[in-house]
Amino acid sequence: MNRSTQVFQTVAAGGAFHIEDIFPIIDSGRFPVKRVVGEPIEVWADIYRDGHEVIAAALIWRREQDQDWQRAPLRHVVNDRWTATFTPDQIGRYVYAIEAWTDEFATWRHGVELKLKAGQDVTLDALEGAGLLTKAQHGGAEALAIVHRQCDEYLQTGEVGPLLAPELRDAMGESQARLDVTRSALLPLMIDRERARNGAWYEMMPRSQSTVPGQHGTFRDCIARLPDIAAMGFDVLYFTPIHPIGRVNRKGRNNSLKAEAGDPGSPYAIGAEEGGHDAVHPELGTLDDFHALLKACKLVNLEIALDIAVQCSPDHPWLKQHPDWFKRRPDGSMKYAENPPKKYEDIVNPDFTCEDAGSLWNALRDVILFWVDQGVKIFRVDNPHTKPLRFWEWMIREVQLRHPDVLFLAEAFTRPKLMKGLAKLGFSQSYTYFTWRTQKWEIEEYLRELTGYPERNFYRPNFFVNTPDILPFHLQGGEPWMFRSRVALAATLSSTYGIYSGFELLEHEPIPGKEEYLDSEKYEIRVRDWDKPGNIKPYIRAINSARRANPALQQTSNLRFVDIQDANVTGFIKQSPDLSNVVAVAIALSRDFHEFWFPLGDVQVEIGGERRPVAAVENLLTGERHAVEWGGLNLRIDPQRDPALLFRCLA
Amino acid sequence: MNRSTQVFQTVAAGGAFHIEDIFPIIDSGRFPVKRVVGEPIEVWADIYRDGHEVIAAALIWRREQDQDWQRAPLRHVVNDRWTATFTPDQIGRYVYAIEAWTDEFATWRHGVELKLKAGQDVTLDALEGAGLLTKAQHGGAEALAIVHRQCDEYLQTGEVGPLLAPELRDAMGESQARLDVTRSALLPLMIDRERARNGAWYEMMPRSQSTVPGQHGTFRDCIARLPDIAAMGFDVLYFTPIHPIGRVNRKGRNNSLKAEAGDPGSPYAIGAEEGGHDAVHPELGTLDDFHALLKACKLVNLEIALDIAVQCSPDHPWLKQHPDWFKRRPDGSMKYAENPPKKYEDIVNPDFTCEDAGSLWNALRDVILFWVDQGVKIFRVDNPHTKPLRFWEWMIREVQLRHPDVLFLAEAFTRPKLMKGLAKLGFSQSYTYFTWRTQKWEIEEYLRELTGYPERNFYRPNFFVNTPDILPFHLQGGEPWMFRSRVALAATLSSTYGIYSGFELLEHEPIPGKEEYLDSEKYEIRVRDWDKPGNIKPYIRAINSARRANPALQQTSNLRFVDIQDANVTGFIKQSPDLSNVVAVAIALSRDFHEFWFPLGDVQVEIGGERRPVAAVENLLTGERHAVEWGGLNLRIDPQRDPALLFRCLA
Repeated sequence: MNRSTQVFQTVAAGGAFHIEDIFPIIDSGRFPVKRVVGEPIEVWADIYRDGHEVIAAALIWRREQDQDWQRAPLRHVVNDRWTATFTPDQIGRYVYAIEAWTDEFATWRHGVELKLKAGQDVTLDALEGAGLLTKAQHGGAEALAIVHRQCDEYLQTGEVGPLLAPELRDAMGESQARLDVTRSALLPLMIDRERARNGAWYEMMPRSQSTVPGQHGTFRDCIARLPDIAAMGFDVLYFTPIHPIGRVNRKGRNNSLKAEAGDPGSPYAIGAEEGGHDAVHPELGTLDDFHALLKACKLVNLEIALDIAVQCSPDHPWLKQHPDWFKRRPDGSMKYAENPPKKYEDIVNPDFTCEDAGSLWNALRDVILFWVDQGVKIFRVDNPHTKPLRFWEWMIREVQLRHPDVLFLAEAFTRPKLMKGLAKLGFSQSYTYFTWRTQKWEIEEYLRELTGYPERNFYRPNFFVNTPDILPFHLQGGEPWMFRSRVALAATLSSTYGIYSGFELLEHEPIPGKEEYLDSEKYEIRVRDWDKPGNIKPYIRAINSARRANPALQQTSNLRFVDIQDANVTGFIKQSPDLSNVVAVAIALSRDFHEFWFPLGDVQVEIGGERRPVAAVENLLTGERHAVEWGGLNLRIDPQRDPALLFRCLA
Repeated sequence: MNRSTQVFQTVAAGGAFHIEDIFPIIDSGRFPVKRVVGEPIEVWADIYRDGHEVIAAALIWRREQDQDWQRAPLRHVVNDRWTATFTPDQIGRYVYAIEAWTDEFATWRHGVELKLKAGQDVTLDALEGAGLLTKAQHGGAEALAIVHRQCDEYLQTGEVGPLLAPELRDAMGESQARLDVTRSALLPLMIDRERARNGAWYEMMPRSQSTVPGQHGTFRDCIARLPDIAAMGFDVLYFTPIHPIGRVNRKGRNNSLKAEAGDPGSPYAIGAEEGGHDAVHPELGTLDDFHALLKACKLVNLEIALDIAVQCSPDHPWLKQHPDWFKRRPDGSMKYAENPPKKYEDIVNPDFTCEDAGSLWNALRDVILFWVDQGVKIFRVDNPHTKPLRFWEWMIREVQLRHPDVLFLAEAFTRPKLMKGLAKLGFSQSYTYFTWRTQKWEIEEYLRELTGYPERNFYRPNFFVNTPDILPFHLQGGEPWMFRSRVALAATLSSTYGIYSGFELLEHEPIPGKEEYLDSEKYEIRVRDWDKPGNIKPYIRAINSARRANPALQQTSNLRFVDIQDANVTGFIKQSPDLSNVVAVAIALSRDFHEFWFPLGDVQVEIGGERRPVAAVENLLTGERHAVEWGGLNLRIDPQRDPALLFRCLA
């Protein structure tokens, strides 16, 4: 082997710089970091090269579809760690990266300064510096003018002085070529609208909104209900599926295998001869009625969220239009959904692995785009964990590239890593285990996980106190203090939370031994007295009102637990990013009377540009004020009156 | 936009599975993990897909230049975390990855078992299962034979039983198509020979090995010295540069700017008319003499390490042959090395950014390959942190692809991340801050950093007690106990350590106020009495002998500190991977008498396949035995006698 003739090779991966340990990042940049528009993003990285050269670095970012980068200089902090902050001003998908390069002129300047200090001759150095100036041709006109002016001055005087002017250093930083610029991988970032982070959800079945017993509710009935829901302070009104319901193998009351005449069936058995996922159940009304509902919602600041369940009743039109999307059994019969030994004869799952999967994927995306065109921007996705991960990643991206304001909530109650995987691949929000977390240690442990790293960068919890499928054991006693405690926990621990209608009426009748509702309205029409005595609507209104008035409660990852010496009281602090709004919360988890110390420690409140310790607190529900003494508060909770104390901290 | 005609797109990055949080990994796979041949490598990863399917996963690996993958099944542990272990059996560069796929047949089998348990009819399921068998066509002949046999049996009997046979499940695991196999990124791995991890280094200047005062030592003189060095128990004999020394601007004694007649110059001013980096200094002998030396080393189990300094004296042949590799100043003069305000007039640095950098890179690599051809397999690289990172990454790779047994030690004393960066990009071993760490807290903190994650996967420390450039303050008192304490610390904390000759003679005369040797042999020829009274050669021999006899001391990252209630005694345990060899060490860091408790806690020793607590310990230097009482040892150290206690733990 003749070595001397071997061709010089560069290492593909190696730039002049190592750019390492970038923050924030998720799985090495495989998935996007999530933020909300207007939120500053602090970026950190280790950046270094060989030698003693002066280096510079910049944070660069752009929307995925844009061409031009925006730039901000990175600042060296300590030990080769650099930082910069940027604030994307639009919603949508971004990429960001880090660039580093050698500042040749600053390196020269630094050397000359050291030589001058040591009394060395710098005549030749000055010539070399001027040589660098003559090569400068980048940057703005202003910078170039400074370069030319200082160069001229040097040539006239022969003195090094003009070459050492600080403004020349800055101008050359802009004007000289960046010969060894190294760029990190491009890292994805999703900037959502505010509602992705913050909102109170109210879930209901539109067909249960009639006021006439036994009568199928309509969108018009829903419109009549809006003032009540809006008055409770909710932001999002989430409807279970609104599509035609299958007749074949329809389920009867309480999930019985045979429907009786008149049984409406489960809205999750989607599709009938009237249409499929892009149709409206005729008994709810028309698409025009739905438009009227959307319009009425806007008037009371409610936003509609629709339920997307990727499953078909046996009489869904797709089974005839696209028989190849569905599996058949060896005897030619339909392959119904099953999770052995459970069978779901009223549902058929499309086969994501079928040969024509491409058209299936497109059709499912087009269902979303259809509803977006109608004006729906929030989708709660039913059981996403049983459909391919890469389908969701593709579909959410497809939709958000066209409509960056669309949000997706993943209703997956499954293993933790799969739930987190769905959040990583693009779901804007996720259901959680909160629904079953009742003990202080497990609530605090779980919240520390969700608000810690890396989860806080991609997992946005939506805390539901109940769902049509889940009546947790702790609510089955029907105790008002427990309902209050749960809604206070959900609404203050998480900036996004929800209740399923009936909760405000303390509904709590289970199928014996199960965490399920008896006579579930999933299988029958229900008409309620929404002002039934004993309801906790005023309490929910008060809590939601406190959330709206206090930016500190509109974030989740700002949560900081405090040490309460009572195993059945959890206490925590939330601060708005600018510290102007600080909220202290204590919530009882047991029905007995509690008296305890709430330490405020080093908590500070910003007022008039100054940070001060907490001097007093104001009860957000009653308006009462207490002075802070000995750095904390001696508090009492009588859960029968109110299990939660919410305070605004005053400086 | 006609949505229905849009082409189906897949997400490039997305497979059916998420494969996350792989261990071991360095910077997302950007740099290789390091191991030594024969060391088992435990691999972990989170692996999941949607749904309830039964999945399978495998670890795959191969040498970079090989085509075929080796495979080992991954085992599910808990919570979607999988693991497997592999042990590469050759040295060299490997890649490894994780593959996951759906086991369609096992999924079918699991469903049928649940249905049978629930008493459901499985006639159609059996047909579906048999259908899977007919598609099986991969795997070995044995597996296929089982598939065919069970299929026949089902067809004859019509019973599902033959389809549920465990051997069929295993055979189908091998034979069925893996339709949705997802492979992780390929992760690099460097498997080195044992010497990369373990070895005692002796550094010397070959020209100082003459026995005649004032006479330039030769390779023949070095051969005469070998028995003495081997008897001390060293493994590697490291020579400062052996090349011709420049005459232009040669430095005089004590680094003076002007050499007197007869001054030999610094061996780091490489190159003269006699040759450059691939030549031997004539006064040391010929290349043949060097070969004789290498042969003599082999006889006493010593391995030569050469010093590579990428710098040239002004009369290095390259300056004439490749003037374009070197920068000139505006007046046409040579641009000497400098680190303002320091100047190095006896050295010129080649310019890695010159237009002809390709030929420079190749020439530097060829220098290494030349010495490898002579039989040298270890290179200590001088100041690698002042040459481009990507040059080293390229060069080390180029050399190791041809000669995977070649090792590189990075002599970089610089900022921590740059030192770690050099280790990541490929240096087999690295110098450390140990040379200056004297306090218990800082020794333990630094060792915890080096033996923790991720450092332990790429940074192999080589603990030097002194170097020609560093006579640390704590040695300047010349106290024998301190020299013993330092060599004991270096040799037991790190499996690779070194001394620079003269240490064994307690040489300690500094340039006043500096951590540098007075009359440094970098600038003059030295002749020593290697058996000078008061030398600590017997002590070094005893320590090295203990290292050789105890596998526990041949690793670094197995270090575990124990809690010694004495601020000037550090204590630790090291265990061989199989626990058959366990060593307990206590070393005094101050000269006063120490008495302290050494807790052995839960330390276990494996003997005859059984793990037992420590019953007694045997002093590795004196052979004395002590019984363990109350789970530990009451120990006494008189540093004037011996500052270190090394015990082998006995069950």
